[in-house]
Amino acid sequence: MTGSVMAGEMAEQPAVVENLIGRRGELHELVRSVVPENPVGIVLIARGSSDNAAIYGRYVLEAATGLPVALAAPSLHTIYSVKPAYRDYLAVGVSQSGRTPEIVAVVERARAAGAHTIAITNDPHSPLAEAAEAIIELGAGEERAIPATKTFTAQVAAFAVLAEALGEVPWNDGDWARLPGAVQEVLGDPEPAHTIATALLTSEGLIAVARGYLYCVALEAALKIKETSGLLAQGYSAADLRHGPMAMVERGLPVLAFTAAGPARTDMADLVRALGERGASVFEVRDDPRADLPVPAGIAEPLAAIPMAVRAQQVSHALALERGVDPDQPVGLAKVTAT
Amino acid sequence: MTGSVMAGEMAEQPAVVENLIGRRGELHELVRSVVPENPVGIVLIARGSSDNAAIYGRYVLEAATGLPVALAAPSLHTIYSVKPAYRDYLAVGVSQSGRTPEIVAVVERARAAGAHTIAITNDPHSPLAEAAEAIIELGAGEERAIPATKTFTAQVAAFAVLAEALGEVPWNDGDWARLPGAVQEVLGDPEPAHTIATALLTSEGLIAVARGYLYCVALEAALKIKETSGLLAQGYSAADLRHGPMAMVERGLPVLAFTAAGPARTDMADLVRALGERGASVFEVRDDPRADLPVPAGIAEPLAAIPMAVRAQQVSHALALERGVDPDQPVGLAKVTAT
Repeated sequence: MTGSVMAGEMAEQPAVVENLIGRRGELHELVRSVVPENPVGIVLIARGSSDNAAIYGRYVLEAATGLPVALAAPSLHTIYSVKPAYRDYLAVGVSQSGRTPEIVAVVERARAAGAHTIAITNDPHSPLAEAAEAIIELGAGEERAIPATKTFTAQVAAFAVLAEALGEVPWNDGDWARLPGAVQEVLGDPEPAHTIATALLTSEGLIAVARGYLYCVALEAALKIKETSGLLAQGYSAADLRHGPMAMVERGLPVLAFTAAGPARTDMADLVRALGERGASVFEVRDDPRADLPVPAGIAEPLAAIPMAVRAQQVSHALALERGVDPDQPVGLAKVTAT
Repeated sequence: MTGSVMAGEMAEQPAVVENLIGRRGELHELVRSVVPENPVGIVLIARGSSDNAAIYGRYVLEAATGLPVALAAPSLHTIYSVKPAYRDYLAVGVSQSGRTPEIVAVVERARAAGAHTIAITNDPHSPLAEAAEAIIELGAGEERAIPATKTFTAQVAAFAVLAEALGEVPWNDGDWARLPGAVQEVLGDPEPAHTIATALLTSEGLIAVARGYLYCVALEAALKIKETSGLLAQGYSAADLRHGPMAMVERGLPVLAFTAAGPARTDMADLVRALGERGASVFEVRDDPRADLPVPAGIAEPLAAIPMAVRAQQVSHALALERGVDPDQPVGLAKVTAT
């Protein structure tokens, strides 16, 4: 059935998250064995959906360590042959398949330059896993649908576990404990996504917006919607949307806004109000039962990224079906990209 | 006259670039006085058009030093109060006005944490200039049009000068010498931009694409076009466009592709060919007189970003006029944003 592979993989997410939660202790030890003391800096290497997970990593790792976190520009290594000065850095390569050649190449170069290297991947026998000193295995099972879903949320959870291993984090064991149930609750309530998909049927584009820890969810929502429906979806941080492209909102583009209880809430509420005043159709994904796309409350903002991402998956899946696209096999996409 | 302020500021760019070139020696000394030895890492702090200039900085600074370059996530400091561990880092704040409060705040926090700090700004008396240990003054004169033009290209040139001060770079004095004339030549040939603007008149969106050193130009082209025309323009690296959103191209979105002689040329030529095979309308900005939007040849790829950016400005200016928008004062934009 059209879209059933993606839907099936989405449904596995509570179990995938549960599995990672169960391995937290051993993963903390593994990370600390590879990174015995504070690294000098941190660099993340990823592409596509994994790049959005890396943006999540960028926030939680700086929160835990205080260190600026760089997202690698792979072309500097693969095209321009810049010599990396990565000694005593922590370099984290992120790839579902572990087979994107440029990600593997940059991790190899980082390790040769004296960086501590970790792979976040779904395949512990992949070239990426072999290139790194340690592996945070996603344990998500094979992913067959072209749009990444369970591996994206697993990557987000993996970055949260990595951050815990390196420093203090703004969430606790209770937040983890509530997470699989929250994801299950979202999956059991697909109707809101269908309603939004119907409302978006004739839209030419869409803006997804969030701030801070949830920024990656806005980017992933936009990417997923672009990939599956070919809709001109674009993700923004609240700050950047305010700074520049409000003209697009005035043209009537709908907005998907992600907010959870936490320090960024006031800023997002202000933005949503300002968007409304400009006449925008704003659909809110929020930890409030009255929201357009509700997410269970009571999970710290950084970990709330996971159920929020599942809401975004539901929207992209429903929208593709509404538009007559098979979300399992959208046009123009391959699962592993060589660049 | 509609759009005359922006056009006037675009016309000042050869002189602005010339002025920065004339100060290269003293700026190198200034930078070396603030950063006496190799920093531990580099972090750049910017928003909006300055953020696109920072992405240029991200490439040239890693090329010069081998160090991973992080783009700051200001919300970690202004909303989440993360304690920065930036000792012996180089932190560079970039703001035309020097008055974006969160940029100033992050530079202050970085300096208090023991980072070497440099401001790239047009106003040497601004709060940003006061917050940093040294200033690379853009010297671009007051910018009155809402879309940044001369200050963007000046920021790009400033990052190139900063990179030279810190290490070996892939361009030389001859490239600098040819730069003002190349910008003048582009400015003296506005017709190609009008032709493209006419072709884009009824487009719902646009994709701008480049790779490596020119990636920032694709991002800035998309931002400028969004800001001035409200068109759904989106910038991509060639690698990311291949990886995901090709479905948008199949829907008929036109593509603006930036290529200069250099290591990324082959990759871009392959992409342009693939886009053509999928039926996309591709408009090429290239250092070849036969290109849709030609740029003078003979300037090393990293510095070619400057005349390429001027081509993008011409397109956004012409497109706004075609669409009946005043590019000097587009809707929904303010010159300085407080976030």
